[in-house]
Order: sequence, then structure tokens, then C-alpha cells
Amino acid sequence: MKPGRTEAFSDGVFAIAATLLVLEIKVPAANGHLLSDLGHEWPAFASYAVSFFTIGIVWINHHAVFEHLRAVDRALLVLNMLLLLLVALIPFPTALLAGSLQAGQDEAVAGAAYGGTMSAMGVAFGALWIYVLRTDRLRRTTLAEGRKRQLLIRFAAGGPAYALGVGIAFVNARISLLIYALLAVYYLLVQIPADGQRPE
Amino acid sequence: MKPGRTEAFSDGVFAIAATLLVLEIKVPAANGHLLSDLGHEWPAFASYAVSFFTIGIVWINHHAVFEHLRAVDRALLVLNMLLLLLVALIPFPTALLAGSLQAGQDEAVAGAAYGGTMSAMGVAFGALWIYVLRTDRLRRTTLAEGRKRQLLIRFAAGGPAYALGVGIAFVNARISLLIYALLAVYYLLVQIPADGQRPE
Amino acid sequence: MKPGRTEAFSDGVFAIAATLLVLEIKVPAANGHLLSDLGHEWPAFASYAVSFFTIGIVWINHHAVFEHLRAVDRALLVLNMLLLLLVALIPFPTALLAGSLQAGQDEAVAGAAYGGTMSAMGVAFGALWIYVLRTDRLRRTTLAEGRKRQLLIRFAAGGPAYALGVGIAFVNARISLLIYALLAVYYLLVQIPADGQRPE
Amino acid sequence: MKPGRTEAFSDGVFAIAATLLVLEIKVPAANGHLLSDLGHEWPAFASYAVSFFTIGIVWINHHAVFEHLRAVDRALLVLNMLLLLLVALIPFPTALLAGSLQAGQDEAVAGAAYGGTMSAMGVAFGALWIYVLRTDRLRRTTLAEGRKRQLLIRFAAGGPAYALGVGIAFVNARISLLIYALLAVYYLLVQIPADGQRPE
Repeated sequence: MKPGRTEAFSDGVFAIAATLLVLEIKVPAANGHLLSDLGHEWPAFASYAVSFFTIGIVWINHHAVFEHLRAVDRALLVLNMLLLLLVALIPFPTALLAGSLQAGQDEAVAGAAYGGTMSAMGVAFGALWIYVLRTDRLRRTTLAEGRKRQLLIRFAAGGPAYALGVGIAFVNARISLLIYALLAVYYLLVQIPADGQRPE
Repeated sequence: MKPGRTEAFSDGVFAIAATLLVLEIKVPAANGHLLSDLGHEWPAFASYAVSFFTIGIVWINHHAVFEHLRAVDRALLVLNMLLLLLVALIPFPTALLAGSLQAGQDEAVAGAAYGGTMSAMGVAFGALWIYVLRTDRLRRTTLAEGRKRQLLIRFAAGGPAYALGVGIAFVNARISLLIYALLAVYYLLVQIPADGQRPE
Repeated sequence: MKPGRTEAFSDGVFAIAATLLVLEIKVPAANGHLLSDLGHEWPAFASYAVSFFTIGIVWINHHAVFEHLRAVDRALLVLNMLLLLLVALIPFPTALLAGSLQAGQDEAVAGAAYGGTMSAMGVAFGALWIYVLRTDRLRRTTLAEGRKRQLLIRFAAGGPAYALGVGIAFVNARISLLIYALLAVYYLLVQIPADGQRPE
Repeated sequence: MKPGRTEAFSDGVFAIAATLLVLEIKVPAANGHLLSDLGHEWPAFASYAVSFFTIGIVWINHHAVFEHLRAVDRALLVLNMLLLLLVALIPFPTALLAGSLQAGQDEAVAGAAYGGTMSAMGVAFGALWIYVLRTDRLRRTTLAEGRKRQLLIRFAAGGPAYALGVGIAFVNARISLLIYALLAVYYLLVQIPADGQRPE
């Protein structure tokens, strides 16, 4: 199996999941106080933006991983499908968090569910990344051990922040959402050099 | 008509159907008992995962079938469209089964509807597979009769389990769902060798 | 502008519209009479199947039209976008017709709306087809006048049946739905020769 | 990172956003006055058409921008993702405007929200365009300063009309919708020469 087909299928799931997010923003009825209704919906817009950017950045990094590949095997297909299952799930915790922040109730549970999904996606991505780095026969790139370690550390550095986001949710789900926004920025800066040339 | 276009269109339907599944998971309102509400929704998450993986595996096998093709004809287009019609339908029985398991009612009907759709998809896939194996002029691969029989048997072996899933639904729809989860694993192991190299 | 990009975008709209159809099938609640509820929903399943196949066949024919092209111009882009606007609309009249047949009310209006959308799509497709046949500089194929007339007649032959479907809706919307099912079969047989080789 | 992948991902978001618009058109229940119900829904159909064509035209122009590129860098990825975030959001203000026009309430707010989203999308597109024109190392085309200015002015000419659409919403949201319809036509005529050959 060529990586190209798997990547195209994955790209489809990324694009669809990102675009479906909008369906979770409830359209308030026009009944005379639409402006304040829209204002109350700020958590829906904020979580839409964070989730959209997160999916976009995972897509960019997914592409970077697949650039190393010359073939895919069964384990990689399973790891990839697990990642996609979590990416496709994102509209659900996004709606959950927005609804909870708007209602001012269950913020710890909703924030933890959001952070948990994001963290699980991070773990799935990390597993895929480790597998690709370790399985030399699948890669078309040659990487020294030191280089592999470096690439992995750079990715894993976001891990504690992902876990932190879940923990913080029990105190304040808004800060938790902010952490995931900052994590998106972090991965954008770390993974994509300013000139668009990957260092590897 | 080149197989490439048909395959790209089919890939789109597979990716969209898999990603739409999330819309069938109801977002519980935040009203103070979100955690227990999410817990009660376990059938929605379980059926989401089984349906997502099943679509993913049918996608992988669909790709394997199309690798044999150098052309498509009318019969193949019709069989393929029938398969896609059933793949695109999957979010419906998935939601039905989840709702029924959660309500604790109508489990036999919902489980049979889920298993029935899966079985119908299996039959449509089998018909496509048999047609491709039999129609030498459409294939770019040469297959000995013994090899064809072997490939077919390997696919058909899952058939009785599909039917069993429908039957078991009348006793316990949860076990039925478990059978379809195991079938996904079976086809993953049988159709995709560990090293990613197809034996044919 | 190369036809390839326009075709890929169009393919996306076709695949998404077909796969979104399932969202219009209402998932009945599990409350003890799910089997009879599913039975009452037959119009939703029937119209799902007819709409899915119709979109699939328009997709196949759309592809056949684009095979003639070596470039696209502004008029063609507008005609194509008009066609896609109608294709993407199909889930709406499909749900309308299903709801009406199920309720046993407003069948004439819903059937005419369904047939009207299908007819409008047919007209948009016909306009695209005529434009491609007439605009020699956009085609990479050379077609004699007689051949053009023949290709057009073969397409236009379904026109009266499209109009008939709208008219029949005022008498019986079920027969109307049946006519659109038969039209799908007609275009499948006329446009796609059994051996998959287009005569042109 | 090659522009091809970014463009394919973007195309997916454009096609999905356009096709999801239909889900925001409410399907009226069949209860004896379906015809008048459909008539009252005219704002939903009108805004569906305007939004669909607008997305289609942004897609065409997005493609035109990417034809200049030989590479993408981080800033371009961020600007592009910002544009896609706004494109994917369009179904929301579309539903908002339709609902408000139908209810005859909150038209100023809904019209401004619609125009605001369209304007923000225009600004994001403009920022992407300016960045591509200014960053010579990313382009594979050589453009004289005068040519760059000309291309920019042609794009920016629509800007005041976008702002006007927001202002007009406070007087009459229907005229506002009409302005966005005319803007779609304007960009279609300005950006795509009749013969399909771009002047640059």
C-alpha cells in the first residue's frame, strides 16, 4: 500500500472534521435580542476557532510525518485510523465545551472531555510518530539516532501542556481552552519554520 | 472510464461517511450531571468506534480491489454505487443502535438493522469482488483459478459471522456490536499482512 | 484554468451531497415500536436511494462531459457552478418528499419540488453539455455536426420524462419518485455502454 | 511544503462548506400548507444561492493565487488557515440571515453578521493576496511593481462594497444580501476573463 492513498483519505477526514465544526454552533432564533444571544455564544466561536486551528495544525504535522514514508504497513494503518477516529470526534467535545461554558455548568467535566480528546489525539499522533521514526524500512529518509531523539523531544514537549489543560479544566475551563489555543500556536512555531523549509 | 476517478469518488464517500458519524452522537446539555449523561452515552461512543473502523477497513479493502483494475464497466459502476449507497447509510443504523442500547428498548430491531446494513454492505462488497475476479478483461492482474478461489474464500469467511451478528441481535445487541468489532479486526488481520505487502 | 481542478472540486460536491443525504433520514426514538416506525419511514429510504443513484449518475455523466475539455472559460464555470448549486440542494427536496409521503400530506407540492429540482438540474446539465458541444475551442475532441446532434438527442430524450415526473406528482408523488428512479436507470444504460467504452 | 497539498486541503474545505449550506435550510413539516411554508422560506433559498456562489468564486480566486506559488511558508499557512476558518463559518451567518429575514426580526444584526463574515473573509483573502504579491521567493512568477499594484487594486475595488453591505444591513438586510450577490458577479467578471485565459 502506497502512502499517497492513505494520506489523501486522511486529508479528507481532516478537512471534513474541520468544516463540520460549524454545524455545532447553534443558530439562535431571531426574536428581538439576537445581538445579546450572539454575545452569549462566544464560547461556541472561541472553541470553533481553537478546534479548527488544532485540526489544521495536526493536518500539517500529519503531512510532515507522511513525507518520511515510502510504504505503510498494518500497524501504521491502525495507528493512523486511531488518530483519524479522534480527529473526526473533535466536533463532539467542542460542542460539549461550548455548551457548558455558555450554560456556566459542568465546566470541569466538559473541559476535561475536551482536553482528554485533544490529549488522546496527541498520544495517537505521538504513537504514529514514534512508530515511523523506529521503523526504518517504512521510511525513505535516513535519520541518525540523535536526530530521531531530537525530533521526538520537540514533539513530546507539548505533552505536559496537554495534560495540564485537562487538569486546569477542573479549576477553570476557559483557561483550559486558552491552553489549547496556545498549544496550537506552539506546534505551529515549532513544527513549521518561518521559511517553510523543514530542518530535516 | 479509468478506475482512478471512480476510486477517488469512492474515497470521498468513505471519508465523509466516517466523519459524519460524529454528528449522530447527541451532545448532552450541561445541566449539572454531564458526567453521568456522558456515561449513559457509552453505546454512542462504542458504535461510533465500530462503525468508523468498519468503514476504514472497507475503504482499505476497496482500494485493494481497485488495484487489480485497469478499466471499469457499467456493471462494476453499478455494483460500486450500491456499495457506496450502503457505506453512506451507515451513520443511520449506527445512531439507531446507539439510541436503542441507551434507551434499553428495541435492541433486537436496532441490532438487526445495524447488522443487516453491515451484512448488506458485505454482500455488495462480495459481489464487487467476485465480479472483478471473474471479469479478466477489466483486470490488469493475471490470477490462476486456484488463486481466485483462495482470495474469495478468505473474504467470504467473514460472511457467516456477519449473519451471526444479525441473529445474535435478537438475544443481545451488545454482543452483536462486539461481533462487528471483532469482524473489523478479522478483516484487518486477514486482508493486510503485517509488513504491508499484499501476498498477491 | 485547467479542467482538472474544476472537475476535482465538482467531484467533491457530488460525493458530499450524496453522503449528506443520510442526515435527512430521521432516526426514530427507541420506544417499543421501532420496527413499525422504521416501516413507516420507507419513503425516506426510497428517496435516499433514488437521490443517491441520481447524484451518482450525474457525476458519471459530468465526468464524461469533462473528458471532452482541454480548457474552461467563464461561461462554463458559471454553468458548472449552477449545476453544482442544484446538486448540493438535492438533500432538501429529498427530505421534503420523504416527509410528505410519510405524513400523507402535501404530496403534490413536495413531489413537484423534488421533480422541479431534478428537472432544473437536468436543464443545467443540458446547458453545460450544449455549451461544451458548441464551443470547439474548449474541447480537445473533434466532433462532426451529426455526431453532436446525436449526443445531444440522446441526452435530451430524458427531458420530457423529467417534466412528466413533475406533472405526475400532482396525481401521485410515489409514481413520480418511481419515474426518477427509472430515469436514473435510463441514463445509466444510455450513457454508459456495457463494456465501459464510450462510443465517442 | 508544496503548495499542492495545501491547495487540495483548501479545496476540500471550500467544497464541504458549500455543500453543507443545504443543511441550514429547514425542511418544513408536511401539514397541509407546505407551498406557502416554502414560499416563506425564500430568504433561506436566496441566501443559500448567494453563499454558494460566493464560496465558489472565492475558490476560483484562491486557485488563481496558488497558481503563482512555488512554495508555502509559515505565514502563508496561517493566513490561509484564517481564510478557511472564515469560509467554513459561512453556513452559520447564512442560516442567521435567512432566519432573521424570515422572522422579520433582528435584520440589522443578522445582516451585519452576514456582511461582517463576508468582509472578514475578504480581508483574509486580501491579506493572503498581498503576502503572495510581496513575497517574491514564494512565487514562481515574476511580477513588475506596476503589475502587482494593478492586480491588487482590481481585488481591493470590491472592498468598499463589502463594507457598504454591512452598513446597508442596518437599513435593509435584503438589499445587503443583494449587494453580496452583485459582488459575487463582480469578482466573477473581473477575475475570470471571458475566454478563461488569465491576463497575467
